[in-house]
Amino acid sequence: MNAYTVAVVGGIGLVGRAFLRLLQERRFPMGEVRLLGSERTAGRKVHFRGEELEVQQLTAQSFHHVHLAFFAVNPEISSHYAPVAAKSGAVVVDNSPAFRMEPWVPLVVPEVNGADLARHRGIVANPNALTTLLALPLGALHRISPVERVIVDTYQSVSGAGQVAVEELSQQMRLVLEGKNAVSHVFPHQLAFNVLPQIDPFYDNGYSREEWRLIQETRKVLHSPELAISATCVRVPVLQGDSAAVHAELTRPITPEDAQTILGDAAGVKVLDEPDVGLYPHPWMITGQEDVLVGRIRRDFSNPRGLAFWLVGDNILRGHALNAVLITETMAREGWL
Amino acid sequence: MNAYTVAVVGGIGLVGRAFLRLLQERRFPMGEVRLLGSERTAGRKVHFRGEELEVQQLTAQSFHHVHLAFFAVNPEISSHYAPVAAKSGAVVVDNSPAFRMEPWVPLVVPEVNGADLARHRGIVANPNALTTLLALPLGALHRISPVERVIVDTYQSVSGAGQVAVEELSQQMRLVLEGKNAVSHVFPHQLAFNVLPQIDPFYDNGYSREEWRLIQETRKVLHSPELAISATCVRVPVLQGDSAAVHAELTRPITPEDAQTILGDAAGVKVLDEPDVGLYPHPWMITGQEDVLVGRIRRDFSNPRGLAFWLVGDNILRGHALNAVLITETMAREGWL
Repeated sequence: MNAYTVAVVGGIGLVGRAFLRLLQERRFPMGEVRLLGSERTAGRKVHFRGEELEVQQLTAQSFHHVHLAFFAVNPEISSHYAPVAAKSGAVVVDNSPAFRMEPWVPLVVPEVNGADLARHRGIVANPNALTTLLALPLGALHRISPVERVIVDTYQSVSGAGQVAVEELSQQMRLVLEGKNAVSHVFPHQLAFNVLPQIDPFYDNGYSREEWRLIQETRKVLHSPELAISATCVRVPVLQGDSAAVHAELTRPITPEDAQTILGDAAGVKVLDEPDVGLYPHPWMITGQEDVLVGRIRRDFSNPRGLAFWLVGDNILRGHALNAVLITETMAREGWL
Repeated sequence: MNAYTVAVVGGIGLVGRAFLRLLQERRFPMGEVRLLGSERTAGRKVHFRGEELEVQQLTAQSFHHVHLAFFAVNPEISSHYAPVAAKSGAVVVDNSPAFRMEPWVPLVVPEVNGADLARHRGIVANPNALTTLLALPLGALHRISPVERVIVDTYQSVSGAGQVAVEELSQQMRLVLEGKNAVSHVFPHQLAFNVLPQIDPFYDNGYSREEWRLIQETRKVLHSPELAISATCVRVPVLQGDSAAVHAELTRPITPEDAQTILGDAAGVKVLDEPDVGLYPHPWMITGQEDVLVGRIRRDFSNPRGLAFWLVGDNILRGHALNAVLITETMAREGWL
């Protein structure tokens, strides 16, 4: 078995660290590991496999002999350096939105459309966290009875906006509980004891970038470019774990009982659905969960072929890091690294 | 002009107090005001109109000479005493769910179906807070282009569960910020830094009582008994103000621009819709707002006749107390008190 040389661009962020930890836990055969970062982070040290890894400054020469380069940085850096890494012979798994909608770039949730990896041309895109969390149960239903229409309203945690957002929410909560005014830098308004129907800026069509990404990426992952889909993405005062209320219209109706079986058998999905005894997913229970949890499975009474459910997933782990690791493992297994 | 004798059953709760304050602010011609309560609350004093009102114990004789009896108590007490009050000649406005779905009882959001009050037989029902908040914008659209289908996912504050719930959330927040475990008595699980897809118990069809009420009551208020409607009701860590993401399918399409005009002209609705500059409703701004605020008005891309929007309302004020006051004012104006 080969030992792969792995580069992580942005290895000290929430997602980059989780990616490395998972690769190690799952015994991915890693040789050299290079942490790459900006001038600002270069020189910082990270404890990994019993040694201190020092962040090196990212340059065009950074990817020499690298088999896999995971990018967990902003789309500007990915746009510039992912093609450089691919040209050096590395396979790039890009966590940013930079390449997700490029027709030649596979956008992959391995359990749903892992076969798309076969047509990679050096760059593979990791979807938006919520796309992955939605695609896992929706993809499982779609295989049995194609989804014709879906409406998704989300309840998204602050960790998706980074560590600084996590700290801002806690600080705001403290201030409000002391009767003081909360200060907002990361969020457009106070988020403590509040919810905000805005994640990222808005387009002219009235949708936020987050909503539009969820719509477009879901269509691409499901191979359903005309899928009728709408979404409202809402930030809630939760630290980790994204939730969504999903209303799907299927080609042929699926009963809630059958949906429980289909989703219970689906890879990456776990059903937790005994509301009578208080058993349903909620974000406080989600940190560290590798599966998307699904509950509240019931008929959607707005349509004879409607099915409604509720999902919660660890946006950092399952939404980003684990999905990238599963892509990496598939690529290694198929001999593409 | 007459001065009406008004009785309030449950006058020391959040809704009962807001009801009395509003009647006074809006100069409703009140004569005697009787506060009625249980054995437990009898004797407690409330400051009102510069005097101390003492809560009297509710009995079958409490409604003698009363013109209007507002019930803001649990459905068991309403079921028993509302007919007693009506028989004594009072008009009852019941805030509880006890009579809402009785065919002979008008369930009224005055701006939407105020004309239903004409057929009252002594008891009028005040809808669930979320029904009222949803019916105001939806009813305005429905008049122009009948609503065929609607999906609603909610973000509901804790004040709907009473003062004890407000205190439990604040206490949980404090404990979690100190690194301690939160304790839940009112909520089924911890709500601090969490969201819970459960409000009230569940029925066998998988819907919660809150969801089912919203579905049935919306159909009744809109005079649309077959309306295709689904909902997910979710409790969020917000103190006051209920929000909802709404996806409506209309008989004939309405453009977002036309919807802004229609909703801007609708009584009880205020449009706040300039997302580019961060202008949209959110619950932190809602306390004390008499109108339902609507924003994020846009096409719903899941359907060619679809319209999506976001609403926020003060659940205690607009959802309960003000709606009851508007019913009361209509009844007085029409000579029905």
